[in-house]
Formats: sequence, C-alpha cells, structure tokens
Amino acid sequence: MIRHTVAFRLKHPRGSADEKAFLDAGKALADIPGVEKFERLNQVSPKNDFHFGYSMEFADQKAYDAYNDHPLHVAYVRDRWIPEVEAFLEIDYTPLA
Amino acid sequence: MIRHTVAFRLKHPRGSADEKAFLDAGKALADIPGVEKFERLNQVSPKNDFHFGYSMEFADQKAYDAYNDHPLHVAYVRDRWIPEVEAFLEIDYTPLA
Repeated sequence: MIRHTVAFRLKHPRGSADEKAFLDAGKALADIPGVEKFERLNQVSPKNDFHFGYSMEFADQKAYDAYNDHPLHVAYVRDRWIPEVEAFLEIDYTPLA
Repeated sequence: MIRHTVAFRLKHPRGSADEKAFLDAGKALADIPGVEKFERLNQVSPKNDFHFGYSMEFADQKAYDAYNDHPLHVAYVRDRWIPEVEAFLEIDYTPLA
C-alpha cells in the first residue's frame, strides 16, 4: 500500500466560490482507476502554511504510476492544479515493516 | 476527527541500530489515551527530505490536547524526539465537510 498525500494552499481567497469550485473539482480524482480511500481534508495545524489536503491510497507502485499517467489526472494538474495552487507538498507513505 | 501526522528525518544513519531503537520507542505513543489508528510509516516520495512518518487520530481537540499534555508524550518529546530528530513537519487534517 502506498498512501499519497498532498498538502496545499490555493491562490483563491479563503471561503471564496473559486475555492469551493476547486475543491469540488478534486472529487473527480476519486474516480480514476486505482484510487482508494480518497479524502479531501482541511489542514488545521498552525505549524505549517497549508490549508487543505488530499489523501489517497494505491495498492502498489504500478497503480500509482497508472494514476499519474491517467488522462484525467494529467488534465487536472494542467487545468486546475498548476493555475490555482499557490504552494504544495507531496508526502507519500508506506507501512513501516 | 483530527488526524495528526508528522513527517521526520532522524540524525541517525539509515538502517542503523539507533534508527531502529528510535522507531521501536515510538510504538509507545500508541498506548497514550485517546490515540487511535497509530501508524509508523516510511516516507517514500522523492519530493521531500523526510524518511519516516507517524500518523494518529483523535476523536476531538480535547483528546488531542490530552495527548500533547500526557506525561508519556512530554517525556518522549524531551528524551527522544528533540535529541534524535533532525527535521520534521507536522500536518494535521480534519475531514472536509
């Protein structure tokens, strides 16, 4: 299992319609084959500057790679992520044996 | 629900006995009251410099605060975390309504 997480901050004002539209569009990522346990999250720690997070799990690296290369993901990164995200950090976890 | 996560890198060499001892000691955090779904994780993304992660969930802020103030947690931070951790980032999530 690989848990892919990304914490991020948007260019949009907090609570704006643009913010809501971005987060709503993110739901589509859950439908890409291989994506399990998709979550949209608020980031609430004052110890970093991110406001939101996405978390999803993949069975293995092959499923993760297929997600990265999937046309829906590629289009999402191009059309929503790059234009609307101000800063982000990807953190990926596997269980410690 | 609040999911408390921390990604971190140790001062110890990778694969060392000191690294193993640190990670083994971390298991004790799972026994602190209020801690749910405790996980010790490998951080595997090349897009950040952390090597490990802990993740746990709390029912609410009161349970999270009680964990932070618990003598076992305070001692762990003082005796293991501060001396042995080189860098870390706390990220806390709640479900997006």
